[in-house]
Amino acid sequence: MERDSELKDRAARVIPGGMYGHMSVLKRMPPEYPQFFERAEGCHLWDVNGNEYIDYMCSYGPMIAGYANPRICAAADAQRAQMDIANGPAPVIVDLAERLVDQVSHAEWAMFAKNGNDATTICVMCARARSDKPVILVAKGAYHGAQPWANYMSKGTPTDEHQYFQPYEFNNVTSLDEAASKVHGRLAGIIVSAFRHDAGHHQELTDPKFAHRVREICDHEEAALILDDVRAGLRLSLDASWSALGVNPDLSAWGKGIANGEPLAAVLGNELYREAMTKIFVTGSFWYQAAPMAAAIETLDVLNEVNGPQLMERLGQQLRDGLYEQAQRHGHGIIQSGPPQMPTLMFEDDPRAETGIAFCGLAAKEGVYLHPWHNMFLSTAHTEDDIGRTLEATDEAFRKLG
Amino acid sequence: MERDSELKDRAARVIPGGMYGHMSVLKRMPPEYPQFFERAEGCHLWDVNGNEYIDYMCSYGPMIAGYANPRICAAADAQRAQMDIANGPAPVIVDLAERLVDQVSHAEWAMFAKNGNDATTICVMCARARSDKPVILVAKGAYHGAQPWANYMSKGTPTDEHQYFQPYEFNNVTSLDEAASKVHGRLAGIIVSAFRHDAGHHQELTDPKFAHRVREICDHEEAALILDDVRAGLRLSLDASWSALGVNPDLSAWGKGIANGEPLAAVLGNELYREAMTKIFVTGSFWYQAAPMAAAIETLDVLNEVNGPQLMERLGQQLRDGLYEQAQRHGHGIIQSGPPQMPTLMFEDDPRAETGIAFCGLAAKEGVYLHPWHNMFLSTAHTEDDIGRTLEATDEAFRKLG
Repeated sequence: MERDSELKDRAARVIPGGMYGHMSVLKRMPPEYPQFFERAEGCHLWDVNGNEYIDYMCSYGPMIAGYANPRICAAADAQRAQMDIANGPAPVIVDLAERLVDQVSHAEWAMFAKNGNDATTICVMCARARSDKPVILVAKGAYHGAQPWANYMSKGTPTDEHQYFQPYEFNNVTSLDEAASKVHGRLAGIIVSAFRHDAGHHQELTDPKFAHRVREICDHEEAALILDDVRAGLRLSLDASWSALGVNPDLSAWGKGIANGEPLAAVLGNELYREAMTKIFVTGSFWYQAAPMAAAIETLDVLNEVNGPQLMERLGQQLRDGLYEQAQRHGHGIIQSGPPQMPTLMFEDDPRAETGIAFCGLAAKEGVYLHPWHNMFLSTAHTEDDIGRTLEATDEAFRKLG
Repeated sequence: MERDSELKDRAARVIPGGMYGHMSVLKRMPPEYPQFFERAEGCHLWDVNGNEYIDYMCSYGPMIAGYANPRICAAADAQRAQMDIANGPAPVIVDLAERLVDQVSHAEWAMFAKNGNDATTICVMCARARSDKPVILVAKGAYHGAQPWANYMSKGTPTDEHQYFQPYEFNNVTSLDEAASKVHGRLAGIIVSAFRHDAGHHQELTDPKFAHRVREICDHEEAALILDDVRAGLRLSLDASWSALGVNPDLSAWGKGIANGEPLAAVLGNELYREAMTKIFVTGSFWYQAAPMAAAIETLDVLNEVNGPQLMERLGQQLRDGLYEQAQRHGHGIIQSGPPQMPTLMFEDDPRAETGIAFCGLAAKEGVYLHPWHNMFLSTAHTEDDIGRTLEATDEAFRKLG
């Protein structure tokens, strides 16, 4: 790990803690994991020591159709060659807004930003602007970004700035009803994730009864149903992730995979929230950047052509079935949760993920990049052959885990 | 304006209000202004109707060394061809952090984000995390982003969420002292702009006495001096913008021009704030993107080689002198404020900017893109010849203004 070590030493001097946020491997990640990468193609990554990995994190989601996807890169590059930023957007902003309005059932308008947390924040502001009410219900433990209103995991924000963000338990109708009734008349919105994908926990698919109840409460209270589809968007469905449950949000937040790694987030909304959106001033220097919008249109084309969600589900199921068989054979109790295209793999009786960390470290040595406590991500660039080679590596990792 | 009109009509259906944020021309901008652009090169823009402009907005700041700057594009493209995003950053993140620590006097570490408002928000969180105190002093009317804590200009955030963000008057020591003494013992930080560049107002350079007083109060209260250099960074100085005043911030926020339009923001800090930074969890899906970091290093090279701030100041002064002479000759009272490299041009007795709007509309017809109430931006891509051609256009605009 020579080059990675040298870079880590240099980083320790000029970056607090050596690295920040979810990309730091210094906290609890397997010690074998590299911090720095130098090449990415398809579903393959190369670290700065020259090791190759089949990647199951996809940059924590953004890569959905393959690193350096030739079609998507060509679309972004062609737009960049014409114009990326200017004193106003390029026409592609209209093309993309129309495209999303066509594709996503609840959407009658779109706007664009950079971070997933820009999108969730805009949804919160829009809900409050329409209703002139302050309270947003947020599921305990859910991640909607690290900006102050959504940041319960670290220092830096006085707790009374969270006074209007009230908790409920995801998938628990009783808890939801109680939380909503406590703030009756003051509820601006309920924010939900596509499913429960909190890091460090087994994932839980959304109970349709819960989803319908969220919709009922929002209708009754004239509050916004805000779907945070930043992480799951375009992996579960080509529509919003709750569409399969028959529940439409009022506002949805998108990011990560929407432009296959080019920096783009989006807010989609229905007619009820159009006027409120014009009453909040939200903007950013780079929000009108054209190249990521061109990449997004091409990403949508690619995902539609191959039915991306279905393909990723099938590949994820192949991986899941193989891991299950191996764990049984090697005598390890594993718990696989969540949709196959965004799988979480944890070990039984492993509250500190120590076995998971050891297993992932062994898999990394065999050329497979997994995650011991965060949901992983499939992409349309993964192939059956990649899954096969992955299973050879995990078989070896299970064997060495003993 | 056929193509622009057609796009505006389409946008009106799928984007609330037709466009959002600072890039909407629908609110108070000259009616001659196009909403959509299709090409950008050097300091020249082409709108979708094929009209060419010499641009004095530089995408509201990000463009600092010319649209499609060949060296900067080549650096970004080379990094993109290797790797842009992965499960960890590329080595360029360390190179850039080291480079900024070398170049900016107060900086002993760096971290990166996407929006300017990510950077100002991180500074606020870091100040609060170190001090365990809640209050941040913010100059009345200053812009530090449109996220909830800094958003006083629109609906969407209950006013009591601003309880800990207390106002003072920029450049007014008495007001600052009063604001600070009111929150004695509870002050986490004072956020300042490089100078007073509030939209719709004449700009005011920073009074050195005021700057030194901010530093004294922060030292006395063990609070962070947070310099918001997002808008002015690298245009006034190759160091932090307050360096010429002999005042170092503890934390500085950067964005806009730092990567010549590639999406990047940065937080720089001194040793006092390093540990606090490790205690806040802040991150974003695209914050580790490598291509904008490669662009930033090349942008710093370009600006250092030509002494960008000095060059932009000289060009801005040439423009200012010419406009002054023309206004005198045509019998118009104009007020030019701010540093020449970020000039604001307003008309006397024009509280609603009606004359300014008319003048900018006339200049646009002559091929020059100005702004009637927001500060403008020079770049190193502007030449004396561009300024000369601009002055021919403005002479004609003054003549037609009557």
